[in-house]
Amino acid sequence: MKKMDYQNVKGTQDYLSNAEVVRRNIRRTLEDVFIQYGCKPLETPILNYTELLASKYGGGAEILEEMYTLTDRGERDLALRYDLTIPFAKVVAMNPTLRMPFKRYEIGKVFRDGPIKTGRLREFTQCDVDIVGVESQIAEAELMVMALDAFSKLDLKVTIQYNNRKLLTGMFEVFGVESEKRNKAVLILDKLEKIGLEAVITELSEQGLANSTIASIRKFLRDENNITFNYFETYANQNEQVREGLNELKELDSYLDYLSVDNQCVFNPFLARGLEIYTGTIYEMFLSDQIIKSSIGSGGRYDNAIGGLLGTNENYSTVGISFGLDVIYTAIRNSEKRLEDSQDVDYYIVPLSTPKESLMVAKDLRKKGFSVEYEMSNKKLGKALNKANKEKIRNVVIIGEDEVKNNQIKIKDMITGDENVETYLFR
Amino acid sequence: MKKMDYQNVKGTQDYLSNAEVVRRNIRRTLEDVFIQYGCKPLETPILNYTELLASKYGGGAEILEEMYTLTDRGERDLALRYDLTIPFAKVVAMNPTLRMPFKRYEIGKVFRDGPIKTGRLREFTQCDVDIVGVESQIAEAELMVMALDAFSKLDLKVTIQYNNRKLLTGMFEVFGVESEKRNKAVLILDKLEKIGLEAVITELSEQGLANSTIASIRKFLRDENNITFNYFETYANQNEQVREGLNELKELDSYLDYLSVDNQCVFNPFLARGLEIYTGTIYEMFLSDQIIKSSIGSGGRYDNAIGGLLGTNENYSTVGISFGLDVIYTAIRNSEKRLEDSQDVDYYIVPLSTPKESLMVAKDLRKKGFSVEYEMSNKKLGKALNKANKEKIRNVVIIGEDEVKNNQIKIKDMITGDENVETYLFR
Repeated sequence: MKKMDYQNVKGTQDYLSNAEVVRRNIRRTLEDVFIQYGCKPLETPILNYTELLASKYGGGAEILEEMYTLTDRGERDLALRYDLTIPFAKVVAMNPTLRMPFKRYEIGKVFRDGPIKTGRLREFTQCDVDIVGVESQIAEAELMVMALDAFSKLDLKVTIQYNNRKLLTGMFEVFGVESEKRNKAVLILDKLEKIGLEAVITELSEQGLANSTIASIRKFLRDENNITFNYFETYANQNEQVREGLNELKELDSYLDYLSVDNQCVFNPFLARGLEIYTGTIYEMFLSDQIIKSSIGSGGRYDNAIGGLLGTNENYSTVGISFGLDVIYTAIRNSEKRLEDSQDVDYYIVPLSTPKESLMVAKDLRKKGFSVEYEMSNKKLGKALNKANKEKIRNVVIIGEDEVKNNQIKIKDMITGDENVETYLFR
Repeated sequence: MKKMDYQNVKGTQDYLSNAEVVRRNIRRTLEDVFIQYGCKPLETPILNYTELLASKYGGGAEILEEMYTLTDRGERDLALRYDLTIPFAKVVAMNPTLRMPFKRYEIGKVFRDGPIKTGRLREFTQCDVDIVGVESQIAEAELMVMALDAFSKLDLKVTIQYNNRKLLTGMFEVFGVESEKRNKAVLILDKLEKIGLEAVITELSEQGLANSTIASIRKFLRDENNITFNYFETYANQNEQVREGLNELKELDSYLDYLSVDNQCVFNPFLARGLEIYTGTIYEMFLSDQIIKSSIGSGGRYDNAIGGLLGTNENYSTVGISFGLDVIYTAIRNSEKRLEDSQDVDYYIVPLSTPKESLMVAKDLRKKGFSVEYEMSNKKLGKALNKANKEKIRNVVIIGEDEVKNNQIKIKDMITGDENVETYLFR
């Protein structure tokens, strides 16, 4: 026989049971939190028309390059979704009778044919919540509090950095960046943490900004006073965008402060986020202990995307947040605490030439709600007890022919070593 | 603005929240049953090398035609998985140290670019359990009992039809079908229910079988006595395959009988299953009330697939079962009983110009474990109460400025109409 080349595709991986038990726990924890916050579930297809995903309200040039495309038997141009946002916007666009505000969550696979760095996969799972139909910063506050709640349930300490796109674009306007260059300039600023101040300045210069503008930006980025809202008051008096952004930030801050979560939420005036669609508040979540430097979740307000998809100028105020299952899994794996990575088994049934009768006992125990492992491979008792030890199963039910004859089962406690005999009426 | 053509790809669909609440319930119910039966979770990628999925131990010619293929940026030939079986076999092949028997479940999307009939989608979700490493019929019994348990928890009445491939191929040998034609003949038999006796006979004749063979097969298919094991005893004396098949059927039946589930399990000597990989027991599940005629789950034993993938002659005894989430969802939708398709909300908070304070109350209620909907769209009280009625939320928490001033919240019971005032200490 020819040996198959059974490998995983580059950038994809299997999750064996130890990993998947942890991932299942993360998925259910997030889902339960989403439900607690009144989010409704939504499921959208992975296959989409390329035209939809390539919309300019989509992921932007960089992500589009990473899009997997294919053709079906009907010669349609299809692509695998690269996020859950465009599919969500599509659903809102296709269902004009949805009751607003519409608050949905979706947990699903997305695909990006990009460079593989540590921890970056080409097929990965996102867990998204989006709210459409709320103009006030209440929506942002709700999502940020929800995120803190979720991470606290996952036992991960996080900090949320937040900012406002209007503040940034307004400041760039004040500094003299021409309007058509402002968005690009914001996207460059997003790399500040990664490539540093000088490299950002260089990239900004390459955009053909005036020397005075570059100097102002450099001064802004170096100033240590701008971590307070006060710093921006004078600019707010000169510029509408700065004023709006600052007011929104203050509103949001008042909620976070009142809810006593302001210690976990930090205003970062340079936070920019790499996607063009954002129009207001933006936020990014980081592990407080910095075990993983990249963000483990992020989001923001994108008020123009759905209207854009719909081809209308109507305002569809939308705020979203996205959690990366894979990066959260890595964070939990790397954390110090004991991992619950094995699945609880209440009883392990070892039939000794009593397959039928043991099946019946298994059935009864499961009926009572217990999780039961039935040994199917004719293991001798010694080997079965070894397996129970290895897999940390406490209760082993031993059913030999004598037990059946006497209408009994024997239950061995692997921790104390005690053996108890219980009556069981076999047929 | 140009209007986007925001459609779903043919053969795919969105599940809005009413549908998805039901689907989430099905998914969790199945998963919880799988866990109760000691199955471990596994997650495999959707993207696979085409070479792997096109293996002859895969889905067979018909499914391969329906495979979505694509090329990544590195010019690799990839395909979307069309089932969860080959990915499972791949994992076993790639992980030689897995402890046997290995019992895993996986719930995930699969893709087939096939003709769209009612209820048939091109992107759908399968829920599979497979056991590798068990030769005895205990594995089949365990999976069949598990299936009955799962459907009972889903409140669906089902019947499992079962048969054995060895019995069928043995009978075909007895009737004089040449060995190289036997597998094909079995696959043709699979259409009996769909196309009827004469059409099956015609297709068999086209395979160039002898007239006497065709006559024997016709007689066999018409005989009403062959629903008992007795009918096959004489053939078992003449033919090794029939003997083995019959013995396995009797063993399986003895378990089903002892567990008192034999009334839900029916031996069907013509059940063939459309996949070439099966080597022993096969089974298919049907709704007892026949609302949906096609099967809502199926599986069987395929002892040669993993060894085949590995390119070894080692025996990897494997038994699997597969539940179709989409067809189960349709069955539940079509059933008479009241559907729990709306998500429970314990409290609906209506802030009347008290956003901060209301957020705090929401936070506290969620901390206590309640699911809370917070009204974010500045609805007036009347509209909010309408919404509560429409969405069947019983408890509405009304927080106006007076309430805050008096350190109170008002809770309205939408069923009795009672309003209760409770003390709440605002900051």
